[in-house]
Amino acid sequence: MARRLIPSLNRVLVEKIIPPSKTNAGILLPEKTTKLNSGKVVAVGAGTRDRDGQLIPVSVKEGDTVLLPEYGGTEVKLGEKEYHLYRDDDILGTLQD
Amino acid sequence: MARRLIPSLNRVLVEKIIPPSKTNAGILLPEKTTKLNSGKVVAVGAGTRDRDGQLIPVSVKEGDTVLLPEYGGTEVKLGEKEYHLYRDDDILGTLQD
Amino acid sequence: MARRLIPSLNRVLVEKIIPPSKTNAGILLPEKTTKLNSGKVVAVGAGTRDRDGQLIPVSVKEGDTVLLPEYGGTEVKLGEKEYHLYRDDDILGTLQD
Amino acid sequence: MARRLIPSLNRVLVEKIIPPSKTNAGILLPEKTTKLNSGKVVAVGAGTRDRDGQLIPVSVKEGDTVLLPEYGGTEVKLGEKEYHLYRDDDILGTLQD
Amino acid sequence: MARRLIPSLNRVLVEKIIPPSKTNAGILLPEKTTKLNSGKVVAVGAGTRDRDGQLIPVSVKEGDTVLLPEYGGTEVKLGEKEYHLYRDDDILGTLQD
Amino acid sequence: MARRLIPSLNRVLVEKIIPPSKTNAGILLPEKTTKLNSGKVVAVGAGTRDRDGQLIPVSVKEGDTVLLPEYGGTEVKLGEKEYHLYRDDDILGTLQD
Amino acid sequence: MARRLIPSLNRVLVEKIIPPSKTNAGILLPEKTTKLNSGKVVAVGAGTRDRDGQLIPVSVKEGDTVLLPEYGGTEVKLGEKEYHLYRDDDILGTLQD
Repeated sequence: MARRLIPSLNRVLVEKIIPPSKTNAGILLPEKTTKLNSGKVVAVGAGTRDRDGQLIPVSVKEGDTVLLPEYGGTEVKLGEKEYHLYRDDDILGTLQD
Repeated sequence: MARRLIPSLNRVLVEKIIPPSKTNAGILLPEKTTKLNSGKVVAVGAGTRDRDGQLIPVSVKEGDTVLLPEYGGTEVKLGEKEYHLYRDDDILGTLQD
Repeated sequence: MARRLIPSLNRVLVEKIIPPSKTNAGILLPEKTTKLNSGKVVAVGAGTRDRDGQLIPVSVKEGDTVLLPEYGGTEVKLGEKEYHLYRDDDILGTLQD
Repeated sequence: MARRLIPSLNRVLVEKIIPPSKTNAGILLPEKTTKLNSGKVVAVGAGTRDRDGQLIPVSVKEGDTVLLPEYGGTEVKLGEKEYHLYRDDDILGTLQD
Repeated sequence: MARRLIPSLNRVLVEKIIPPSKTNAGILLPEKTTKLNSGKVVAVGAGTRDRDGQLIPVSVKEGDTVLLPEYGGTEVKLGEKEYHLYRDDDILGTLQD
Repeated sequence: MARRLIPSLNRVLVEKIIPPSKTNAGILLPEKTTKLNSGKVVAVGAGTRDRDGQLIPVSVKEGDTVLLPEYGGTEVKLGEKEYHLYRDDDILGTLQD
Repeated sequence: MARRLIPSLNRVLVEKIIPPSKTNAGILLPEKTTKLNSGKVVAVGAGTRDRDGQLIPVSVKEGDTVLLPEYGGTEVKLGEKEYHLYRDDDILGTLQD
């Protein structure tokens, strides 16, 4: 039952990144450093229309790693996977290494 | 008394999909997996006008399977059938297998 | 004293349809089936102006049978008859047999 | 001290019609039938400007008999006469015999 | 220290008219008849800009006698004189004899 | 550490004028007469954009003496000096002798 | 794990300036003088679109020293560094020596 969700309007579907609680060498990371609330963009909506009917595309794209607000987001379970749905305007920014 | 409802403006008429509580082989599905709140689009309104009088069509169409918000929606009984009416903006997205 | 009301702006004057509590054969209908809150459009306003002064006509017309919201509507008594006044945006849709 | 008020912007000056409590033949009318809250338009404002500076005229005119909302309206005493001031948008409609 | 205030944007500076409590012949006027809250326009702002940057002038002008709302208005003391500052939209209308 | 603040968008930086509590001849002024809340404009922002991207300049300029609202304004200390930051729309008007 | 955040829309990423509590000569500064809430702009979003789809750029740029409001701002930890995210409209102004 693998299902895909195409978000509507200016919504963004995100799969949250669970920050590692240990370093690669297995050392427990202090709880404080692993607080970054981020996720991978899985799908974006077609965008909304401004008052002249012009389409305003979503400002992030599939594959981006994005910084998420502390609150908000709608939980969506598709099969065994858990995603979160945000409005484009709620996404705080894009993370780059 | 089979009646049809043509939603007004940017409203969307949806028939909720009751998720199966058993697999085809009759095995009871754990309550948690069957929580997806979705439905079939039965009819859509003509859309609303932007401030320049341009028509902004509804972003989903008849036959789409859509993901519904946890709350909201107006219950509408037509004959023996039960539907729900949403605003286009409340629909979370379109589901594809 | 038969008086007529021409609704202002985007208001819609509706005469509520009292659903029959018995079938034609006189059998009492279970209370639940007769809950559809609908009415006949008696008159509509000229519409409102969008921000460019363009007229946005009302989306329903005289003679339409419309589905009404559970709440809202202003009661208007003209002579012995009782009507209800709604804003165009509050009308849920148009009913067709 | 007969004074005239020219309402500002989209305001409408109305003289309320006190419904007769007796028929012409002097028979007392049951309290319920005389509940129509209406009035005569005495003066209207020049209208408001839309966002492009275009003038949007008031939708009712001097001499119209209008249906008034149950609440609202600012009481204005000019000499011995009492009037009420409404916004154009609050007027429910125009009454015609 | 005679100072002048040029109101900003769509503000209107008004000097309230204190209604006479006696007739010219010195007879005390019943308290009720002297309730008209009016004033003389002393100065008006340059107006505000609509969303296209067009200037929307104030709808009343210096010298007009205007009807004031029961509440609101900012008290401004310039030297020994007391004025009140209103937004153009709060002025109820212009009074003419 | 003399620092300068360039207000952002439609903000206005004002240095409050402390009204003299004594006349030039040293006579104590009754507390009531010295209540005018005014200040000198020290710097203004570049203005905001209307919905078409047009720049709407601030309506007051550097050097103006302006009348300030009783409340509001953000206190800003630059070195030893104290200023207040207002939005253009909060400034009540310009004072001229 | 040095990570960079590109703020979305009209957001501004700021690194707060911790005001020195001592003069260069090591003398303790009275607590009151060191209250200026300012920071360095580290990154800005691409801006938002006005209703015609035109891009409205952020009004401050990377490297500016800006005056921050007393409240608001979202805390963002990137590696060991702490930043704050503001909306362009919340930034009070740009500080220049």
